[in-house]
Amino acid sequence: MTDFDKNLGPRSVNFVPLTPLDFIARSAQVYGAMPAIVYGKKRRSWAQTYERCRRLASSLAARGITRNDTVAVLLPNIPEMVEVHFAVPMPGGVLNALNTRLDYATLLFMLRHGEAKLLIIDSEYSSLEEKLKTDLPDLIVIGVHDDQASTPANPATWTDYEVLVNEGDPNFNWLMPEDEWNAIALNYTSGTTGDPKGVVYHHRGAAVNAISNILEWDMPKHAVYLWTLPLFHCNGWCFPWTVAARAGVNVCLRKFEAQHVLELIAKEKVTHYCGAPIVQSALASAPAEWRVGIKHRVSTMVAGAPPSPAVIAQMAEMGFDLTHVYGLTEVYGPATVCAKQTDWHDLEPAAQAQLNARQGVRYHLQADVAVMDPETMQAVPADGETLGEIMFRGNICMKGYLKNPKATEAAFEGGWFHTGDLAVMSPDGYVRIKDRSKDIIISGGENISSIEVEDAIYQHPAVAAVAVVAAPDAKWGEVPCAFVELRSGAVVSEQEMITHCKLHLASFKVPKRVVFKELPKTSTGKIQKFALREEAGSIAAINLS
Amino acid sequence: MTDFDKNLGPRSVNFVPLTPLDFIARSAQVYGAMPAIVYGKKRRSWAQTYERCRRLASSLAARGITRNDTVAVLLPNIPEMVEVHFAVPMPGGVLNALNTRLDYATLLFMLRHGEAKLLIIDSEYSSLEEKLKTDLPDLIVIGVHDDQASTPANPATWTDYEVLVNEGDPNFNWLMPEDEWNAIALNYTSGTTGDPKGVVYHHRGAAVNAISNILEWDMPKHAVYLWTLPLFHCNGWCFPWTVAARAGVNVCLRKFEAQHVLELIAKEKVTHYCGAPIVQSALASAPAEWRVGIKHRVSTMVAGAPPSPAVIAQMAEMGFDLTHVYGLTEVYGPATVCAKQTDWHDLEPAAQAQLNARQGVRYHLQADVAVMDPETMQAVPADGETLGEIMFRGNICMKGYLKNPKATEAAFEGGWFHTGDLAVMSPDGYVRIKDRSKDIIISGGENISSIEVEDAIYQHPAVAAVAVVAAPDAKWGEVPCAFVELRSGAVVSEQEMITHCKLHLASFKVPKRVVFKELPKTSTGKIQKFALREEAGSIAAINLS
Repeated sequence: MTDFDKNLGPRSVNFVPLTPLDFIARSAQVYGAMPAIVYGKKRRSWAQTYERCRRLASSLAARGITRNDTVAVLLPNIPEMVEVHFAVPMPGGVLNALNTRLDYATLLFMLRHGEAKLLIIDSEYSSLEEKLKTDLPDLIVIGVHDDQASTPANPATWTDYEVLVNEGDPNFNWLMPEDEWNAIALNYTSGTTGDPKGVVYHHRGAAVNAISNILEWDMPKHAVYLWTLPLFHCNGWCFPWTVAARAGVNVCLRKFEAQHVLELIAKEKVTHYCGAPIVQSALASAPAEWRVGIKHRVSTMVAGAPPSPAVIAQMAEMGFDLTHVYGLTEVYGPATVCAKQTDWHDLEPAAQAQLNARQGVRYHLQADVAVMDPETMQAVPADGETLGEIMFRGNICMKGYLKNPKATEAAFEGGWFHTGDLAVMSPDGYVRIKDRSKDIIISGGENISSIEVEDAIYQHPAVAAVAVVAAPDAKWGEVPCAFVELRSGAVVSEQEMITHCKLHLASFKVPKRVVFKELPKTSTGKIQKFALREEAGSIAAINLS
Repeated sequence: MTDFDKNLGPRSVNFVPLTPLDFIARSAQVYGAMPAIVYGKKRRSWAQTYERCRRLASSLAARGITRNDTVAVLLPNIPEMVEVHFAVPMPGGVLNALNTRLDYATLLFMLRHGEAKLLIIDSEYSSLEEKLKTDLPDLIVIGVHDDQASTPANPATWTDYEVLVNEGDPNFNWLMPEDEWNAIALNYTSGTTGDPKGVVYHHRGAAVNAISNILEWDMPKHAVYLWTLPLFHCNGWCFPWTVAARAGVNVCLRKFEAQHVLELIAKEKVTHYCGAPIVQSALASAPAEWRVGIKHRVSTMVAGAPPSPAVIAQMAEMGFDLTHVYGLTEVYGPATVCAKQTDWHDLEPAAQAQLNARQGVRYHLQADVAVMDPETMQAVPADGETLGEIMFRGNICMKGYLKNPKATEAAFEGGWFHTGDLAVMSPDGYVRIKDRSKDIIISGGENISSIEVEDAIYQHPAVAAVAVVAAPDAKWGEVPCAFVELRSGAVVSEQEMITHCKLHLASFKVPKRVVFKELPKTSTGKIQKFALREEAGSIAAINLS
């Protein structure tokens, strides 16, 4: 030990765990009177919100919730969903935000696997009352009901959320994590095959990603953030904690409807929101009169599938500044950003859109993102052509999968988190995604990127959405099969679409089959390729990864 | 161990030490072509600056610098001073930035106490060559010389800095800290009595304070930062790391001259700078024609003594947005900020200035600031009247004092860092400094705040600067003695000034003696009250703390 460490170890005066819980405490202290929550006629300040969280936290503690106890929530993007992001970890609990679109069997698996002691559930899901009572008799159920709900009240057997708030202690002395490595949240990945995996987040990562969101977006204090992104999705990409850090405003939303969202943007002067491509696309294609009230600049983040250049261009025309991010549940939501370069301004809009649609560079406080050969664990050349797997390393990376050491070790093999997504590294150091590993189509020994085929089909003016998957083929092994959703009223034949593709693609990449239908989508707007693969008969063939 | 920790401990994939070294790596990677350094005709990008730092770091390593080796620097705010903030920690070294205004005996004490292996020194201090050779024969001395220096060249025995850069490895694989608790810098406090104390900073604190600077200031990417604040002062309040994190521009400055600074603000479109009250005052009182080119908004931070309401009002008139911060070497520079509230805008400018001149609230990522009775360690009531000592706790707090466990334990007594500064807590939770402990004047059993007396004297239009200290008095124990520097050309008698004070102060607070003279100041613009206390004959009497 050198003199720089002798008698100079960490102690409580100079080492405090990093945690997003501190963000709400500071905003309540410094900006207590500033608005925190807007929901219909409801307006609450940061002081009020912090008090409600402390009350709820003390009531959870009184019901036995302590360090490392799971509290599950099944809630839309209402104020209570923001509150639980603080109130559950305050007594030491771990927040398990469940996807509201899941089937009951999957929810039951998660509640059992995560060993939830308590469930906070919205009255819209009151049809689950009987089943939950039967399957999980020990589960404490707390019901949330507000005047925008479709049901008149909570079931009588559910203790009302407001009872917990009212009986709680407004000065509850909540627990700091003992270590910044303590779990703060549990998020199940949807997973196309096998049981869902429980991704465990720690306080350090949540704090660091919340701060990174601010840095990437140059998000100012008191930003007005609209909850178009489901909060059950990677804890809303850590934005409940980001908004608290900025003493910003959470504009809540029970349900996404393009017209209502555009009205809110105008009325509440929303400055920031996030959303899947389908959300962006719905707003971009809304009638112009729905957005007449929007005179200010709006910043938006998009992730999920790469947005089409057409949507990017449309957003720019609306005066919405779009930032493209990329990530997965395992890295707390976004962990790369397509950082804009000042000299891109000089390019044609289409070229700009192409550059902006990439997955980009590592998030500010993420140590590294790389595109690697998963066999050799060597980075691929930055030539924009060589395919590799996207890998992450750094503080914005999960603890691992709950009770699943095998999956954890596999995901972390070689000291990197393996995303399963295939990409190239551009010469400028930006990652460009090419495909999910499982989405690659191998035809006659050649790799076909389903995204490349989709991009070609998207260029047809009649196309609203498209998904390309592998179909088994006796001669070629696999061939591309396209599922296409047309704009309302449009009519295109299979042969016309194939002819269109031949104009844009090498012949071996042209789909052998085109199916016109409405595409199945997940609650977050991702097209469910799994279902389409089943339809194409390729499940067995493509399950290589 | 619960399931949330089993097999889920930190490993290199998900735990990386927080360090500001990563900030320059990322900016070089993502914004490599953006400007990093501006100095006269010199312009360097982030890629170039990162390369120079890596080259220099490899040359330092080649000269034996490794983990926990001290590298001292004696440099003005030139580009090399920015570079060493990265190049010294890169091979594991600890940066000891020395105050360029110190006398040789004090510098020698610091070089010996810190056990510096290598010194990087500007050619302006070449008169030290012989003495250093004699007193520290083993010290490796590297000389910096540029065309703005007052000397024609480095002494021949000093190896030129550019030699190290040129012979270094541009791809040097610099060392991450083994632990974010590793030392990154050593900063000696000037200390009015006794030997200087060596404050040790760690990588975690440096990163966290650098980020907090961004958050407090809403500092955007690519901000243009002017180096009016000495970089040897708490590592320029961590701003070399902040500017790197933002991929901003360091506008360097060999010497502060108001006219040159205002020209640079106009020409380089400077958006941000920090400075002591004396810097602000010099800019505020400069002839209006010196700032004709400044059409944009400039943000500035001020710390040190509370700026006078008059200076605050003048800055507002100039369109300079002033943020008041407070801190000490032990908390990495600023660790509180006078966060502005939106409803202050409605107040009269004078009332706004009063509110804005306070020390404020804890920095974003600092855990706590409190005003406490140091005997009981209880917070004083937030009544704006009860005096207590300002105390800090959190991640923006030093490891302790180098080789001085006694001072470390005293500073950290009771789990808080004791600042020695006396303050009240306002009802709105903002700290307002009243006095340095050692500046309090005890007269007839009554406490007199020297700042209060100074504020009264500052209201006299002829006053340029003032310092009030205790003078021994047979009857009262101590009485206030005022040292006043008048604006050029002004003439005021002692009796006139005393009459002026009687209008503003209770009679026991009125100075018994007023001395007109130029006030002695430190390199950072603080008035050297120590020297004035000597002159007033009160050293023994006031040395109570």
